[in-house]
Amino acid sequence: MNMTEMIIKKRNGGELNKDEIHWFIKNYVDGVIPDYQVSALLMAIYFKGLNNKETYTLTREMENSGDHADLSSIKGIKVDKHSTGGVGDKTTLIVGPIVAALGAPVAKMSGRALGFTGGTIDKMEAMDGFKTSLGPDEFVEQVNEIGIAVIGQSGELTPADKKLYALRDVTGTVDNFSLIASSIMSKKLAAGSDAIVLDVTCGNGAFMSNEEDAEILAQMMVNIGKRAGREMMALITDMNEPLGHAVGNSLEIEEVIETLKGNGPEDLIEVCLNLAGAMLYLGAKADTLEEGKKLAKETLDSGKALAKFKELVEKQGGNPKIIDDYSLLPKAKFTKDLTANRRGYIESFDTSGVGFASQFSGAGRETKEDDIDMGAGIYLYAKLGDYVEEGEKIATVHSSEEGKLNSALEKLAQSIKIGEKPEMPKLIKKIIE
Amino acid sequence: MNMTEMIIKKRNGGELNKDEIHWFIKNYVDGVIPDYQVSALLMAIYFKGLNNKETYTLTREMENSGDHADLSSIKGIKVDKHSTGGVGDKTTLIVGPIVAALGAPVAKMSGRALGFTGGTIDKMEAMDGFKTSLGPDEFVEQVNEIGIAVIGQSGELTPADKKLYALRDVTGTVDNFSLIASSIMSKKLAAGSDAIVLDVTCGNGAFMSNEEDAEILAQMMVNIGKRAGREMMALITDMNEPLGHAVGNSLEIEEVIETLKGNGPEDLIEVCLNLAGAMLYLGAKADTLEEGKKLAKETLDSGKALAKFKELVEKQGGNPKIIDDYSLLPKAKFTKDLTANRRGYIESFDTSGVGFASQFSGAGRETKEDDIDMGAGIYLYAKLGDYVEEGEKIATVHSSEEGKLNSALEKLAQSIKIGEKPEMPKLIKKIIE
Repeated sequence: MNMTEMIIKKRNGGELNKDEIHWFIKNYVDGVIPDYQVSALLMAIYFKGLNNKETYTLTREMENSGDHADLSSIKGIKVDKHSTGGVGDKTTLIVGPIVAALGAPVAKMSGRALGFTGGTIDKMEAMDGFKTSLGPDEFVEQVNEIGIAVIGQSGELTPADKKLYALRDVTGTVDNFSLIASSIMSKKLAAGSDAIVLDVTCGNGAFMSNEEDAEILAQMMVNIGKRAGREMMALITDMNEPLGHAVGNSLEIEEVIETLKGNGPEDLIEVCLNLAGAMLYLGAKADTLEEGKKLAKETLDSGKALAKFKELVEKQGGNPKIIDDYSLLPKAKFTKDLTANRRGYIESFDTSGVGFASQFSGAGRETKEDDIDMGAGIYLYAKLGDYVEEGEKIATVHSSEEGKLNSALEKLAQSIKIGEKPEMPKLIKKIIE
Repeated sequence: MNMTEMIIKKRNGGELNKDEIHWFIKNYVDGVIPDYQVSALLMAIYFKGLNNKETYTLTREMENSGDHADLSSIKGIKVDKHSTGGVGDKTTLIVGPIVAALGAPVAKMSGRALGFTGGTIDKMEAMDGFKTSLGPDEFVEQVNEIGIAVIGQSGELTPADKKLYALRDVTGTVDNFSLIASSIMSKKLAAGSDAIVLDVTCGNGAFMSNEEDAEILAQMMVNIGKRAGREMMALITDMNEPLGHAVGNSLEIEEVIETLKGNGPEDLIEVCLNLAGAMLYLGAKADTLEEGKKLAKETLDSGKALAKFKELVEKQGGNPKIIDDYSLLPKAKFTKDLTANRRGYIESFDTSGVGFASQFSGAGRETKEDDIDMGAGIYLYAKLGDYVEEGEKIATVHSSEEGKLNSALEKLAQSIKIGEKPEMPKLIKKIIE
């Protein structure tokens, strides 16, 4: 096979067959095919697309390019969950304990992240002593014992995706449904769960800005998963404001615990109950999605989810006293408030802008080498549709470096519009099976 | 500036401005921008195109990425000529002497080539002792003295084009009008002549398969050259059969000399007189193209062009006795004839196929490292529209390696169709100014 010919075939609208995709992925991972040919192919794919068959084949070839998590010795239907990303998204740490408390095993591998805040794993590390790296046997054992484990990737999963994603990021070839879907689904398939619930966010803080695009992506991923023999469901959720009040690592952990104590923000609770409901339904712990949501609510209200969270923290080496004493969490040395420059309603957020403000404060990495300021971030007092008086405090920026406060605050101020009472977006926009 | 953003801008159909193109070319040549970003940009250009302004800017930036030939001390209007390539194209070696004999200075830099045969420079080297490398002063001096010099590139002209072309070749991004036009014209502008005649071939042996495409490319190149202050003319010529009878290096030198002696094939003569006419017209040695053609014919018929060719060979260290004794040219050790498998007319050639047969015989390089077999190639006895009897010899394959004869012969046999009398293509299809 010849890579130049394969590029030209795709460029001219041809379909790549299984042998070709296999050959391409294998030789790219092995370093035989150079980046400069792959980036040309990716751009041709950007313009000519991949059909369903090609997308599925690419997903499986990336899945099979590295290790698989072996969850076979975990009893029951393992349920995984993935979000396409947003601002203030701490759902995993609430949904996981709820579902585990109801007996559905959660063997969760999460990522670190570049972006607005750390990833789930970074957030967990805001709790001093929390170990995010477990050996494969230890990981499986813990899930069998307490029903949940949350760790960073173990083994070398989907090296093809890692290499391709890094290349797409610097060659303008990120925005393609097939490439996004195959990237996410290859990792999910390799992670080994039997059932997968996808949270596909849409809005001005999400990768997909509109509902139509989110639906196309969601349906594509659901189809890939089903074809690979997994139980699948996708929720399309709104991301036109940050989820909850807290954006930042230790700030979000505090909000997670408050939510598990029954004091969570409405929007965060609603998304979590829907995701947990879907996981319970796919995990055969509920006969319908509605029943799953009901069970999830009961478990949250009863304190059983909080107890499961405590068990998880303790088991993985964290200090469970944090749950009752937030002063044990890292705090930023400096804070600065944002006040309303007029009275009116919070008309809209530039949600990504809030995310960048969080990153500017030190809560997120810009490059892999950056350190995260665990205490940094944004706390929003006012949410979409709230009425505020002129001079009222609407948000606080936290940072361990005083010099970062102003740029974060400026970005934040630009990202919040005070004006007319807005029409409130529907939080759960669609469910795709 | 940021390369990823530039790729996305072009991908989304935006126009690249002068600063961006300058920055891109400079940093690519300097090794700052990696190939994998450039190939993504090239593929985006393939799909979204470059407008006239961008194409012109790219051409000039590539022109200015390296050295310029300084022809300022050559008296008169220097006229250059470029062909977009074909099979059996040896026109430079006929046209150059004609034009030089009429007093228009020809300071010709030619290339080596990958492909069906060697380039003009390789063909010249079929004449033992012929020096294709002269210093800049020597080059200029020779043109002032005898009116013509033909050498390989001296200095480092258009390094940006070299790097880009090598990348395009392996990333499926060759076939784009703007990229082709800017590549050719950057080299021609850097080569320093005042006037440029372009031979844009079209047909099944040319880069442009149809006349419409050839015309788009020709017009684009003419416009670029004029905007850069050069006198420009393009001829669109047919390439639906090899030009003349000979394809191969030493075989073509023999045909060149025969043509200069007045025994050339009709098609080759017609194309040469048109090209020479255009060069004389642009070089102000004729008031019209027609007058230029008439002067060219007289000069060819009178033997003055042959004398000029002899002077050129002698001056650059070749053996002028070759002109009267072809046995001094390299000969292939082995030959094998192709005979007609039926009677009928030569209905069509797969002209590229004949070119590949020549390459298979050893006459052309597949990679830069390959050596050329100077004596190898194809000699066609029958041309388009000729009537042949069954069993009649229609072509001979020449090679220094017996093992190459059969694959070349097989390819050649597949490339000649005997059948009905064809409609003859018009040789000079269009003139673009």
